[in-house]
Amino acid sequence: MEAQSHPKVAVVGMSEAGRGWATLVSAAGWPLTIYDPDAAVLQSSDEEIATRKRHSQGSGFPAITDEGDALPGDPRLGRSLLNAVTDADWIIDATIGDLLHRQRLLEQVEGVARMAAVLTCSAPGLSPTELCARLRRPSRLLVARGFDPVEHIPAVEVVPGPLTDRASLDLVRGWLRQLGRIPVVLRKEIPGNATGRLTAALWRECIRLVLDGVLEVRDVDALISSGLAARLAAAGPFQTAYLEAGERQTAQLSALLRALESRWEGDSGFQLASAEHQQLIRLIERAYDGEGDVLRGAREERLTELRRIVGY
Amino acid sequence: MEAQSHPKVAVVGMSEAGRGWATLVSAAGWPLTIYDPDAAVLQSSDEEIATRKRHSQGSGFPAITDEGDALPGDPRLGRSLLNAVTDADWIIDATIGDLLHRQRLLEQVEGVARMAAVLTCSAPGLSPTELCARLRRPSRLLVARGFDPVEHIPAVEVVPGPLTDRASLDLVRGWLRQLGRIPVVLRKEIPGNATGRLTAALWRECIRLVLDGVLEVRDVDALISSGLAARLAAAGPFQTAYLEAGERQTAQLSALLRALESRWEGDSGFQLASAEHQQLIRLIERAYDGEGDVLRGAREERLTELRRIVGY
Repeated sequence: MEAQSHPKVAVVGMSEAGRGWATLVSAAGWPLTIYDPDAAVLQSSDEEIATRKRHSQGSGFPAITDEGDALPGDPRLGRSLLNAVTDADWIIDATIGDLLHRQRLLEQVEGVARMAAVLTCSAPGLSPTELCARLRRPSRLLVARGFDPVEHIPAVEVVPGPLTDRASLDLVRGWLRQLGRIPVVLRKEIPGNATGRLTAALWRECIRLVLDGVLEVRDVDALISSGLAARLAAAGPFQTAYLEAGERQTAQLSALLRALESRWEGDSGFQLASAEHQQLIRLIERAYDGEGDVLRGAREERLTELRRIVGY
Repeated sequence: MEAQSHPKVAVVGMSEAGRGWATLVSAAGWPLTIYDPDAAVLQSSDEEIATRKRHSQGSGFPAITDEGDALPGDPRLGRSLLNAVTDADWIIDATIGDLLHRQRLLEQVEGVARMAAVLTCSAPGLSPTELCARLRRPSRLLVARGFDPVEHIPAVEVVPGPLTDRASLDLVRGWLRQLGRIPVVLRKEIPGNATGRLTAALWRECIRLVLDGVLEVRDVDALISSGLAARLAAAGPFQTAYLEAGERQTAQLSALLRALESRWEGDSGFQLASAEHQQLIRLIERAYDGEGDVLRGAREERLTELRRIVGY
């Protein structure tokens, strides 16, 4: 992509997510304006972003910058919301606040933004339908939520609403890819979005383990960071199950599901109908059919590298 | 530790877990016998272990071997269960099978093992109380369950039963540390153990996302491996929340818990009593009090390294 075709970006709200997005965009050398209503916060965020940008460039994330780019410029500090977003192609809302606060802010932003600007919200757990309630052009709004720190973790959950147009989704997906991100697009809205649901489920069990006196806080953290998450960072749960099942694929996946089912039964009451059990196995097999050897090699490499990192 | 004080180890059952434990022990240069009732499986496992051992040594896990050790020897192939376990100090049961099968195997093992031998089971989800039902010396049995592949993932869930003696627990914990593992010891038995509970909760949400048509199998895997798990491999959930909360610690943790609570309410019905909410925040703060800066630096380093690995 040519340097001049980079979008002009504005990040509104210097939350952790806002500073992360700004670091990512700034490290890519894209024109960037940052804004926060608190001038002191804006100033200290600017300094933090400069530091984080240096860290994120040192260890070479090849996809972050296009080759031949000039050295990334520093973000411009918006003097007002109007000043910050007025010429942006991509406006990232990373403010903190409840739904009503966000709806009002988005309404204000839309009032001064370019007609063609795309708005993405990094709000955890809110849906585009909720967020766009006060907008005249809801077709230009999506949820795009990264994992903090945004410049380090590549996956980004993208949620288009029923009113979001295809062009906005395509633009955001393209920009995210240029930034070295892995956009994961939800096919429909669900309460809490996917990340919120996964996070809440995992936290629930972590909290139960602590409050029931089974593990200390530090033990739970070690079991996850140097165990469960280390394993799943090498390959997601379905792919791991697929790769480990080996020769007797269907039988092995079925045995795994049965083991999980007996656990849910005693715990959450969640059950799979027999047809769902079969369907799920089919979907897992189809998702990775014929790629076993390549994926196994890639996972092995990731595991070998991860191991140096996740020990203490 | 002196070379001669390494335990003699026997791994019974060449499952994935069994081959992983054998790789780990063999790479450490400890005397090792492996056994499987299927001679062909035993032979092919021996070859696989040799390959995996080379991979696990190449990238230097410093804690794996004590300095000054001779080059690690190859495992001895047990000619029978008796022959395999008879002089072992540490017998690792990694067979596949239901509870009754395992109980019988452990009974057989105990019948021929040294009086002082310690037995660990890598059975996912079974408790020591269930496993030791047929043993005369239940004090020598524990669950020690790693994450596959065992030689790559350092955390090991250790579950002593009510009858397990302190000496056995101390021995196993010490051996695991010598092998570069991070033992996480449960303070009491719970159905499914900690790993089983965490895994079942996460899988439940992954499955719902796929069956509800929200995400494809591959999308769920990407969201977890390059998102949620990448983030949590750098620091567990409690520690991450602690480090991200910054100045306004208690208020921030409380806000996070409230957000989770509203998600559980709409979903699993799980709730925290107000006292539990407060207690949990206190426990998280106490767990990491005064270590914020050191831990923040360590997390930052892990994140920087992880980022090179979790992109595709």
